[in-house]
Amino acid sequence: MPAPATETVEAVLRHADAHLDQSRETLFSLLRIPSISAQDVHKGDCLHAAEWVRDRLVALGFRTEIRPTAGHPVVLGHYDGPADYKGPHVLFYGHYDVQPPEPLELWSSPPFDPQLVDGPRGKRFVARGAVDDKGQTTMFLEALRAWHDAGGGIPAKLTVLIEGEEEVGSRNLEPFLVANKAELKSDVALISDSNMWDIDTPALTTSLRGMTYVQLTVKAAKRDLHSGLYGGSALNPINAITRIVGDLQDENGRIQLPGFYDKVKPVSNAQRAQWDSLGFSEAAFLGDIGLTVPAGEKGYSALERLWARPTADINGIWGGYTGQGAKTVIAAEAHAKITFRLVPGQDPAEVVEQFKQFVAERLPAGATAEYEGGHGSPGVEVNTDSSWVRAAQTALGEEYGKPAMLIGCGGSIPVVVSLKKVLGIDTLLMGFGLDDDQIHSPNEKFEQRCFHHGIRSHVRLLAKFAAG
Amino acid sequence: MPAPATETVEAVLRHADAHLDQSRETLFSLLRIPSISAQDVHKGDCLHAAEWVRDRLVALGFRTEIRPTAGHPVVLGHYDGPADYKGPHVLFYGHYDVQPPEPLELWSSPPFDPQLVDGPRGKRFVARGAVDDKGQTTMFLEALRAWHDAGGGIPAKLTVLIEGEEEVGSRNLEPFLVANKAELKSDVALISDSNMWDIDTPALTTSLRGMTYVQLTVKAAKRDLHSGLYGGSALNPINAITRIVGDLQDENGRIQLPGFYDKVKPVSNAQRAQWDSLGFSEAAFLGDIGLTVPAGEKGYSALERLWARPTADINGIWGGYTGQGAKTVIAAEAHAKITFRLVPGQDPAEVVEQFKQFVAERLPAGATAEYEGGHGSPGVEVNTDSSWVRAAQTALGEEYGKPAMLIGCGGSIPVVVSLKKVLGIDTLLMGFGLDDDQIHSPNEKFEQRCFHHGIRSHVRLLAKFAAG
Repeated sequence: MPAPATETVEAVLRHADAHLDQSRETLFSLLRIPSISAQDVHKGDCLHAAEWVRDRLVALGFRTEIRPTAGHPVVLGHYDGPADYKGPHVLFYGHYDVQPPEPLELWSSPPFDPQLVDGPRGKRFVARGAVDDKGQTTMFLEALRAWHDAGGGIPAKLTVLIEGEEEVGSRNLEPFLVANKAELKSDVALISDSNMWDIDTPALTTSLRGMTYVQLTVKAAKRDLHSGLYGGSALNPINAITRIVGDLQDENGRIQLPGFYDKVKPVSNAQRAQWDSLGFSEAAFLGDIGLTVPAGEKGYSALERLWARPTADINGIWGGYTGQGAKTVIAAEAHAKITFRLVPGQDPAEVVEQFKQFVAERLPAGATAEYEGGHGSPGVEVNTDSSWVRAAQTALGEEYGKPAMLIGCGGSIPVVVSLKKVLGIDTLLMGFGLDDDQIHSPNEKFEQRCFHHGIRSHVRLLAKFAAG
Repeated sequence: MPAPATETVEAVLRHADAHLDQSRETLFSLLRIPSISAQDVHKGDCLHAAEWVRDRLVALGFRTEIRPTAGHPVVLGHYDGPADYKGPHVLFYGHYDVQPPEPLELWSSPPFDPQLVDGPRGKRFVARGAVDDKGQTTMFLEALRAWHDAGGGIPAKLTVLIEGEEEVGSRNLEPFLVANKAELKSDVALISDSNMWDIDTPALTTSLRGMTYVQLTVKAAKRDLHSGLYGGSALNPINAITRIVGDLQDENGRIQLPGFYDKVKPVSNAQRAQWDSLGFSEAAFLGDIGLTVPAGEKGYSALERLWARPTADINGIWGGYTGQGAKTVIAAEAHAKITFRLVPGQDPAEVVEQFKQFVAERLPAGATAEYEGGHGSPGVEVNTDSSWVRAAQTALGEEYGKPAMLIGCGGSIPVVVSLKKVLGIDTLLMGFGLDDDQIHSPNEKFEQRCFHHGIRSHVRLLAKFAAG
């Protein structure tokens, strides 16, 4: 098959433009499903979301199945493309699960009742998953639909894999890839779960941090105690846990786990120079969220701290009485959830062991420590010298009228590591989120303009792939 | 009026014995009222409990009123006693409010559905407030009822003051005492809100620690953030608050607030010798609650740490995601509730200022600290060389067949300080709780044997007062 004619691509783009409202309604129907993978009570909703994806793929002519895993299922669809297709076999990956919406009281509308609202940059969608990753996944599916409806069929050979455990560490995905390696054979992976440089400037993400998550519980007495009658004799596990996790960083922001930095590689001069050329303003970045003073490790630039240095953030802490007023109690236990963002070279399992050693060195006699979690994935760097990266740069350049930036991302997309390790393929990270989309936070949103350009950019990218 | 005849006292005691089941049912009807002073939603229940107390006093012939305060009301009753009464005018103080029952899932029965259950030392009552202080207050009221029904009337001149804010720091009580100083004129106060030495050995409490409570909130960004996209640049308020409050004590258990120990007096040699003679076993004390290693300040005996040294206990901490599984969020704020137990000489307001200074010295740039609470009361020592103490020692000695111990208490009863300051009177602390009563904890209980002896001991004490 030759490359699609320019007029065909234009017709598909016009169709996408004309059906934007319908694409948005399609997304909204997915956003109404509370597919929170972290919470058992939403297991049925996760299956419901998987069925939603399956039905969309079936309607596009994919051979599609919902495949079980030890956790939430994977939706897997295959499409052969034109008989004379010469381009790459593309594996598109997305996820239908979302982060918990708590704290609910901070949402201006219910998290699973998507709203179309006016923002400073036009219409936006507000809902949990609006961008991460239901919005970006639907964007791709709507590009396929436009080709299907107005382009004489989807012009590429595709496998689509949409999982349901990305927000809980994708722990069952790698076993799934291993078990289905032959069926998943492909040339390049495509993921839309990352950000643009800004709303007018497209970007390809070429480095991602890894992550490991661990929950620490410190226990002392077998029941809650009166702080007057026992204070001064009984160990207080909240005092103990704060003393431990409060020591994660030293006064320079250096993480205190033994051996934590041993495998952290410094950023190359070339990389640093490219990032410096982006003209990133940390003051503006922090100003948007109401902060003025940068935190993190001293001695590194903002983009190094965000993209190429590991972190230790306590994501949650709780223990004792947390209601109104005073309760003079010494609790029996205290808990903290911690994630370490990792850079290429660091081994997530090793970091968990370092954390356990760090805790053991600080745990007071008479207290016990228990752990949950411990899953994670390493950081990753994408090879930028490839025909796929060039294809995406061309597609984005045509859509936006300016070149795409090559950027890093502080977040983690563990599947990128697994795809390389198990299937031996590189991943193209072409995303349309913005820094202020409030993913994982109340009032997560997606700009309609980004959604629209995202559909159009994927329409163009599919044509580039078809050109071989 | 001469001292009541021995046979009258014996008749009143027999009446109390015969009506024990009825006394227990009376207590249970009070325990069913969820009068949690810390929680606004229970404001009506607090009034209901006040009405319950008023009705009991009215039935005993007291001139009784429910008096408003800026918070929950005070129940105030007066009884003139016999016309020829020569003994002291006694002011009995108790409180009808209780601690919050959380965590509810650890209760073996609903906290406001009192249960009569078999324990290793006979029957016990299980409910929030079973001993603190509904149980002990009812014990006194039932001693009055026995005198009223079987002794020809209550033999003493009494004022009964039952407040509803003890568990939230009694902040409106002192203004009430000041405003009603003339009406409250009396010779000695009597409080039953403390413990015995053990179930067979009565005790008078002659020293109490004070307390001050403060809630710290640390705020950073104006919303929750994704820990991948912001980690390394945005300040994490949970990391910050743990770093601050985790530093409350040094490695020797010394509290790090500037000037905290300046006004702490060492225990006298005589006091230390008396306490050493009690033969307290910290191993047994901690063993009962599943602990083996003493915590607290190094270099002091267990009873000194519990009764005569100040503490800093974090009673509650919360922030970020505390649900199931992982949520990779940097929270916008984090909170901790802290109480400092104080010893005589320390000024609660001064300690709050020291805490604020301690926080300010550790607060990272860009974070803000906010405070709630800050109310408190100083520690107190009771003069043991008084006719009231001797009267109580005699009554307890007759009831138990062994002398009463003079002990300290690590808890706080702020009203003792206010009674001395405003009314100029000493307080007799004659309590019947046990260390394992789990006050402020799930499954709070009161041994029926303690309740019964407590009624009888108060019957005897009233006779001693009447003897002048």
